[in-house]
Amino acid sequence: MKKFINEVDDFILESLSGLAQAHPNLVSVNLDPMYVIRKDIANKKVVLISGGGSGHEPLHSGFVGHGMLDIACPGHVFTSPTPDQMISALEAYQPEKGVLFIVKNYSGDVMNFEMAAEMSSYENKSLIINDDAAVINSSYTTGKRGVAGTVIIEKVLGSLAETGANLDQCLSLGQRVNNASSTMGIALTSCTVPAAGKPTFDIGDDEVEVGVGIHGEPGRRREKIKKANLMVDDMIDVILADLKEKNVKTNSSEILLLVNGYAGTPLSELYLLFDVAAKNLKTHNIKIARSLVGNYTTALDMAGASLTLCVLDDDIKNHWDAPVLTPALRWGM
Amino acid sequence: MKKFINEVDDFILESLSGLAQAHPNLVSVNLDPMYVIRKDIANKKVVLISGGGSGHEPLHSGFVGHGMLDIACPGHVFTSPTPDQMISALEAYQPEKGVLFIVKNYSGDVMNFEMAAEMSSYENKSLIINDDAAVINSSYTTGKRGVAGTVIIEKVLGSLAETGANLDQCLSLGQRVNNASSTMGIALTSCTVPAAGKPTFDIGDDEVEVGVGIHGEPGRRREKIKKANLMVDDMIDVILADLKEKNVKTNSSEILLLVNGYAGTPLSELYLLFDVAAKNLKTHNIKIARSLVGNYTTALDMAGASLTLCVLDDDIKNHWDAPVLTPALRWGM
Repeated sequence: MKKFINEVDDFILESLSGLAQAHPNLVSVNLDPMYVIRKDIANKKVVLISGGGSGHEPLHSGFVGHGMLDIACPGHVFTSPTPDQMISALEAYQPEKGVLFIVKNYSGDVMNFEMAAEMSSYENKSLIINDDAAVINSSYTTGKRGVAGTVIIEKVLGSLAETGANLDQCLSLGQRVNNASSTMGIALTSCTVPAAGKPTFDIGDDEVEVGVGIHGEPGRRREKIKKANLMVDDMIDVILADLKEKNVKTNSSEILLLVNGYAGTPLSELYLLFDVAAKNLKTHNIKIARSLVGNYTTALDMAGASLTLCVLDDDIKNHWDAPVLTPALRWGM
Repeated sequence: MKKFINEVDDFILESLSGLAQAHPNLVSVNLDPMYVIRKDIANKKVVLISGGGSGHEPLHSGFVGHGMLDIACPGHVFTSPTPDQMISALEAYQPEKGVLFIVKNYSGDVMNFEMAAEMSSYENKSLIINDDAAVINSSYTTGKRGVAGTVIIEKVLGSLAETGANLDQCLSLGQRVNNASSTMGIALTSCTVPAAGKPTFDIGDDEVEVGVGIHGEPGRRREKIKKANLMVDDMIDVILADLKEKNVKTNSSEILLLVNGYAGTPLSELYLLFDVAAKNLKTHNIKIARSLVGNYTTALDMAGASLTLCVLDDDIKNHWDAPVLTPALRWGM
């Protein structure tokens, strides 16, 4: 295993410590239990708290700050956080207007956040994210998985919460963005979990995993690598079918296109995917009105990428455009 | 070779086309000859133009915009741009206050930018960047290589140029930041150049290349991978020795710490390196006053990272903090 690491058990602790020191004006980090909390505590608005297994950075810890999350609770690598993390973080934060738990749909995450929701003394609701169009039911999931669309949802809800919206309004918009978002990913290589020390799955030198999950879970099929044009055509077909099934109109719609790297794929290739996707979407009469390209929901060191289409309306667009100031996303401030 | 790519010859063209479509408000791209130019033409200030072989994205094309570069001229992968690119871009831009060529110290880049400087009808000067502490003379270089410190120099000069400074002032501050910056990198894997289709160099499963260049050029030595603590100690020793040789005082100084990924290493490991470096620097009585962590000067898909220390003064700090709005760096706007 080739990683910049000291002891496996300290990996996430040291990484979080680095995050806190690199962004001292934006976030504070508590290491026992682990949580990341925004520096400018904003407990008079709905408090947005998310989390999940580590290894997907900058998701979620890099999205803590003005206009996005209030709290992120990272578990160890690909391991759910436990309710004591959420409870301790909320006690430190002292919400006054309710709490929205933002949970990617993995069985462990759902269970631990449900327990936190029950134990919490604060009014709360939960939003389950399941934007992955690839598969229904998977290694760690009943239903569809929550993947890169999470970034869009957290950004949009972060803006809405800053405006003073109430808990029901936040939940409602979150459900709308989740429904309007659909994601499909392809892996070129496996990732390597530090505690395992070897690749999560074997894959041939000329093979890709189509529909891979962000933990290296199996997708729809294993196939020979093809030209980017053809791989993108396949991905967009799946996404458009999924949106149709969710009754989201795409023809002549404006969308946000997120080209998300899993970490091991360079930016030059992600921009190439953007170019290819843009050509494809034009043939479907879909207009790219907003975009994001980079490593935002990663799978440790996996090479590969996902495409997310989020069909926009004026609300979503305005909240996407609103100022944000976090370690990993910042504009307008 | 596992990449998201169509034809090898179209790789950079399609990637640049994606960049332009993903950031339509920030940059325009010309494909023949290739250059990236900022949308809000600012030709009444000193015009900053950089470039070099592609494969280091977001350097330089992702740094075009307000408060940073005016023009970037990318060559094909690891291949210098040619003078016609610089000349055409400048003709499109119509500088009125002179031109600063910002050139990383590689023989091909230096030669091509020198030719452009001679051919140009605009008043111009050239800044050569050589922040790499690893080796003197290398595969493609006489003297020291220009590496990740380039990001800091381009950011700081971008701010200075926006204030209306003249060409001599821009060159002078650029030389100061270059002298105050020192970088050392380690590769965990090779990169793969698309046209070659196979890794640039062979490296064992338990080996690292200490002092690697951003094209996979050899560094100081090949050794067995060690704990991150020990690798960082080695890197900082080299950097501090280099700064001492350049007569830059580090004891009780404030610095900017850049932890730069080569593309294949996840953000979680880069933040871990930040944590380890911060502990080390404390023992040297060096204060981290500013920081940047991420993939900013990459080497295609190489796994690995570099550390850059830039010793700050008030000028450099203020220009670092000033607003910037480019595809890859943005704050304050």
